[in-house]
Amino acid sequence: MTTFGPLFVPAPFRDGVSDAAWLDAMLRVERALASALTKTGIVPASAAAAVAERCDPSLYDMNELCEAGRSTGNPVEPLVRALRARVGAGDARYVHYGATSQDVLDSAAMLLARGIRSLLDTELASAAAACARLAEEHRATPMAARTLLQQAVPTTFGLKAAAWLLALLDARARLARLELPAQLGGAAGTLASYGERGLDVLRQFAAELELQEPLLPWHTDRSPVAQLAAALDAAADAAAKIGLDVVLLAQTEVAEVSERDGGGSSTMPQKQNPVRAALARACARGVHAQASLLTSGDHELERAAGAWQAEWNALSSALALAGGAVTAIRECLEGLQVHAKRMRANMTDGLLAEHRAFAEREGREAGDDPMAYLGSADAFVERALTRFRESR
Amino acid sequence: MTTFGPLFVPAPFRDGVSDAAWLDAMLRVERALASALTKTGIVPASAAAAVAERCDPSLYDMNELCEAGRSTGNPVEPLVRALRARVGAGDARYVHYGATSQDVLDSAAMLLARGIRSLLDTELASAAAACARLAEEHRATPMAARTLLQQAVPTTFGLKAAAWLLALLDARARLARLELPAQLGGAAGTLASYGERGLDVLRQFAAELELQEPLLPWHTDRSPVAQLAAALDAAADAAAKIGLDVVLLAQTEVAEVSERDGGGSSTMPQKQNPVRAALARACARGVHAQASLLTSGDHELERAAGAWQAEWNALSSALALAGGAVTAIRECLEGLQVHAKRMRANMTDGLLAEHRAFAEREGREAGDDPMAYLGSADAFVERALTRFRESR
Amino acid sequence: MTTFGPLFVPAPFRDGVSDAAWLDAMLRVERALASALTKTGIVPASAAAAVAERCDPSLYDMNELCEAGRSTGNPVEPLVRALRARVGAGDARYVHYGATSQDVLDSAAMLLARGIRSLLDTELASAAAACARLAEEHRATPMAARTLLQQAVPTTFGLKAAAWLLALLDARARLARLELPAQLGGAAGTLASYGERGLDVLRQFAAELELQEPLLPWHTDRSPVAQLAAALDAAADAAAKIGLDVVLLAQTEVAEVSERDGGGSSTMPQKQNPVRAALARACARGVHAQASLLTSGDHELERAAGAWQAEWNALSSALALAGGAVTAIRECLEGLQVHAKRMRANMTDGLLAEHRAFAEREGREAGDDPMAYLGSADAFVERALTRFRESR
Amino acid sequence: MTTFGPLFVPAPFRDGVSDAAWLDAMLRVERALASALTKTGIVPASAAAAVAERCDPSLYDMNELCEAGRSTGNPVEPLVRALRARVGAGDARYVHYGATSQDVLDSAAMLLARGIRSLLDTELASAAAACARLAEEHRATPMAARTLLQQAVPTTFGLKAAAWLLALLDARARLARLELPAQLGGAAGTLASYGERGLDVLRQFAAELELQEPLLPWHTDRSPVAQLAAALDAAADAAAKIGLDVVLLAQTEVAEVSERDGGGSSTMPQKQNPVRAALARACARGVHAQASLLTSGDHELERAAGAWQAEWNALSSALALAGGAVTAIRECLEGLQVHAKRMRANMTDGLLAEHRAFAEREGREAGDDPMAYLGSADAFVERALTRFRESR
Repeated sequence: MTTFGPLFVPAPFRDGVSDAAWLDAMLRVERALASALTKTGIVPASAAAAVAERCDPSLYDMNELCEAGRSTGNPVEPLVRALRARVGAGDARYVHYGATSQDVLDSAAMLLARGIRSLLDTELASAAAACARLAEEHRATPMAARTLLQQAVPTTFGLKAAAWLLALLDARARLARLELPAQLGGAAGTLASYGERGLDVLRQFAAELELQEPLLPWHTDRSPVAQLAAALDAAADAAAKIGLDVVLLAQTEVAEVSERDGGGSSTMPQKQNPVRAALARACARGVHAQASLLTSGDHELERAAGAWQAEWNALSSALALAGGAVTAIRECLEGLQVHAKRMRANMTDGLLAEHRAFAEREGREAGDDPMAYLGSADAFVERALTRFRESR
Repeated sequence: MTTFGPLFVPAPFRDGVSDAAWLDAMLRVERALASALTKTGIVPASAAAAVAERCDPSLYDMNELCEAGRSTGNPVEPLVRALRARVGAGDARYVHYGATSQDVLDSAAMLLARGIRSLLDTELASAAAACARLAEEHRATPMAARTLLQQAVPTTFGLKAAAWLLALLDARARLARLELPAQLGGAAGTLASYGERGLDVLRQFAAELELQEPLLPWHTDRSPVAQLAAALDAAADAAAKIGLDVVLLAQTEVAEVSERDGGGSSTMPQKQNPVRAALARACARGVHAQASLLTSGDHELERAAGAWQAEWNALSSALALAGGAVTAIRECLEGLQVHAKRMRANMTDGLLAEHRAFAEREGREAGDDPMAYLGSADAFVERALTRFRESR
Repeated sequence: MTTFGPLFVPAPFRDGVSDAAWLDAMLRVERALASALTKTGIVPASAAAAVAERCDPSLYDMNELCEAGRSTGNPVEPLVRALRARVGAGDARYVHYGATSQDVLDSAAMLLARGIRSLLDTELASAAAACARLAEEHRATPMAARTLLQQAVPTTFGLKAAAWLLALLDARARLARLELPAQLGGAAGTLASYGERGLDVLRQFAAELELQEPLLPWHTDRSPVAQLAAALDAAADAAAKIGLDVVLLAQTEVAEVSERDGGGSSTMPQKQNPVRAALARACARGVHAQASLLTSGDHELERAAGAWQAEWNALSSALALAGGAVTAIRECLEGLQVHAKRMRANMTDGLLAEHRAFAEREGREAGDDPMAYLGSADAFVERALTRFRESR
Repeated sequence: MTTFGPLFVPAPFRDGVSDAAWLDAMLRVERALASALTKTGIVPASAAAAVAERCDPSLYDMNELCEAGRSTGNPVEPLVRALRARVGAGDARYVHYGATSQDVLDSAAMLLARGIRSLLDTELASAAAACARLAEEHRATPMAARTLLQQAVPTTFGLKAAAWLLALLDARARLARLELPAQLGGAAGTLASYGERGLDVLRQFAAELELQEPLLPWHTDRSPVAQLAAALDAAADAAAKIGLDVVLLAQTEVAEVSERDGGGSSTMPQKQNPVRAALARACARGVHAQASLLTSGDHELERAAGAWQAEWNALSSALALAGGAVTAIRECLEGLQVHAKRMRANMTDGLLAEHRAFAEREGREAGDDPMAYLGSADAFVERALTRFRESR
């Protein structure tokens, strides 16, 4: 899925979007369809059983299916042929009954998305927990706030961590809210083959897959894909923002944080490369590129000639790389070393100048303790921590 | 804002993101801040009154402010200077008290977004109503569904319009759900100048602007901007999908729809250019390009050195062009001529082949009436219309 | 063209892509066409004179043309109508003779691009000269090279400036190499109205405009636009890379460079915001967003229904913002303060560790002078300066 | 590399960017470095021999290297460690001598790019030849030109194929012109370890790899990557434009072309899906998404913390998918069925209206033969064919 995959993307995420995962998901969809059709009385129960028995991924060679798919434009058509051949003459006609390739692929995509979402949720929860610990622990750790990368006025590391935390919680909530609908419309989106029972089949099919029932087939209304992509992009972006800050704070000249296992070098012992922060940023760039493709819904009429097919690779990459970004930042946060003394030492005299000027104008005495100039910093930290506690 | 603006973007949308609109919004923000600070007892009431009186856009020259802003990196700093000069020595210190330029610009951006959202809502509602009429009227108008632009099986124009309708309703709901938060954090996001009263000021400030109160300042957590951009992109994309279908159905050889006032030509009378559909697609491409920038949240530490400044133009363009896309598609839909006879005439014999084959396998007689093969098409239309009715 | 235009984009660049500039360019194209047709004997000389006389921008109201263009999809059709009305019955038929709207708009776009390219060339040359001075002056100014923002081993500021210089020279050369072709094909790209003389007209027309003669009309082969966009993106990107480095080196904790007129603050005197660097980065993000649109050549058949129309605004923005990026970085470089002592002081002990280890393994004595470990740094500077001298 | 790889990307392209190909290329780079260092007298010849012997990809486990690379941020560091271990104590120090990870990865990337470029060149040449045949064969095949997808005036299929041809030739020439430079700078871009002999090593190293010698190391001047990405995007885009036209001309209602082995369906025999055209478009979208990432050169100081690492996957995908796009369109063109009769039959009466009106105004008789109104169409075809002949 990605070059040097294990470097960027942990195995569960790689496995979750592999071609094997797609094959497995497509077969789960075919099985769910047969089951739904049996339950709605459209195909005999024997057919559903026969289909279910042959929906075993080990029976199929994904490479062959993809090669064969070159002449049909997708891997479902050859898969259905192979599945029908295995089911045999009697029930072959009930395989993929009334469905279209896109029904299978789109539903399979949503199954993969659901799996990755679950993995992302765990990672985001852990990353948020690590942020919450940092925010709590450093409520009273003053440091310089930097605007345009110039020291401005004091803040606390706790507040910085609180802002990271909030972004992670937002990303997690957004993923959780995502609608991941089943797809079933048949060739034209009319469920023509099911007569009066179309809506029943659709409901049952979605229930079998534990996906949401869509109001209408969404063959060329790609809003579910676009919203998924935007949510993945947001999650990766939250990770990348933390990564950016860590990279900046870990600079040799700033040295306010470091990664526990900073990528070192035998010959350059002074280097503590913020490797996980960099990996998170790298992955997020990849997600962002794919999100641009996946939010471009120019799909023609009832099925797109290119725009749809482009989604499979883009979605797999976006799902995997979002996993890479979030995992890297979780690791980064869990091992983040915060150097409070250095934070204090870095604070320049000028940092309090604005406050001194204020005080002077107001006839007050201005002290030298940055803690006296933190305004609502701690109150904001408390707000973020409260949101965190509620999120669990 | 855009080249050939009146061609693409109706005046209210252009006006809503003009530099004059930004100036007006920035002044509204300064006024709201002074008012909030008075109500929370931080500045004297006389100051709020003095500020309010000078927050009159006609007193300032936006061109000069922007020229002056070149050396400070934004137009707020010169505006505050000018405002302070007008307020005069006594209360000048209460102008922009405790705020930072980004507080003003981000809050102003949200005010502009709110204004455009309201305009978009009206346009989307009208476009949806036009779609609903088409869906209702053409529930029983059969036509060929086309996959990969090849005729596949029958559908109805009503179902096609219902799918367009649903996408418009989704886009509208998504915009309505958007959180448009006020921004107030002061130089470091700590509201340092307000002592213990920071959260009160924030609440009051947001209330004055009728914007949402954020949990934390979001100077470098750009999620509100990203979600706004994604929602604008989705709205423009819904318009562009309709535009794409209209362009395809309006082709000379298909001729199933036409725009009422198709862009004609005195020398090529056969041409009925689907001009509004094309304009909607053009605008949507522009929104999509800006959305990619606006969803890229790599803002450094407490204020970005470039990424933030890049948002102003991108957001203005995205807001304006989303307006252009949705308005063009509303006009397109309101004037859409549907040629039901041609739809019927275009249907090839092969279109029923799949159904005939099905019927044969099942020992049924297969008729030649496409209306017999529409499955749940009408039920889907009803679902979309129900959603539409509920949306009003 | 851009929000807060004067803040980001100097007047010559803004003027060069304004609607007035487009109008002027469209009229120059109509005049050139009439002239070319006269010289090739297709229309009478009186017609060319009549057209030329009425091709005065002050005679037309761009706003009205754009409003009228809403129903035809572009501003050329109303402009031609207005021009014909002014030319009067006799020669009206020779106005825009045999041309199509896209011929006029695409040729006008290339005229605008040529104008902006010339402005960019001057700015890039000045920016390169400033870089060359810095490179020359700091050939022997050691500083820490930073990888992943960690100090690595020594380099010189001269080498850094040399790398910036080379990127600017490359960007300039790439712009200079650009082919900016005239567009003339008539409605279908066949020059049908000129009979046997089509190629003569095309050659003459291109010559009149001093644009390149294309091999074929390029109505839907958007390579010229894509290459222009890529070259603008590259120029802006070269500026943004310098901006990024300046922002990083200007950080309070690094303080190795500063902008001469750093955006200061009366209340935060310690701040020397790298404003021009930030503006360059902001502009470059805008160019990059538009470049993505402009390199997407999915234009249908003989004229696109949306993709073409989307180019006008995107191209104007990309041209203007490229100007903004390059100008800002030129100003930044011309005023860049280099703090050689601080560079030396910032160098950590670890910086020589790799070299010491090397020396030790090789049984050599390792000194403490970073100048002893600069390898080919100076030779590389010389290479870049040589290229610079050749470029003038 | 891509989901359902064999469906989209032929094996040679997949193999050319696989992790195995990267490993092989990285080892070729290490070997070339040792060889260059021997030839320049920096390391003993025995070392080069020892390194060369161990630069056998079968000795290394790419998966392990990538896992190990997670803590160093790239796979080169673990590879060098493994290589050193195999070379053994004596010469281990000469492995990767004076180089940095980025030297190896960037040079390896250029080797991969060179391999894919060669494959692309062959495919583009074949696609161009197929276009040339179509252009030649259909010089006198009239058809409707379509603007905004409305029939406009007559053209020939030959001219359409000639325009496709020219775009393919341009894309091919652009790829051929690409500079693919070696990368060698050492940790800071100074070649510090080679003393006075740095430039000699660089020249020799580039020669060994048959890559271009760069003027300066380009660790954070990503112009070579950006230009490569733009050229890949242009090649895929040329394919996608052809694919778009084929999809449109192959529509059921137009039926002017069809793919020889159109993706059919047993149940919908009327369908002749333009599968290869759709695949080309799908691949091109993927290339375009990655090109946006790869042309974004915001790499910090002497090595980027994220932006560089993001390139590996993006570049692999772009290279592979460009191969997919061009191969699909080559197959499409080689098997394209052109239905000249249908082209003639589709031409509406209105198509000649403009010409009739012209003739009438000029007092000429207007005939009904579209061939009489083709202007320079054939001359343009000849121009494109001449360019084609010269390109071989």
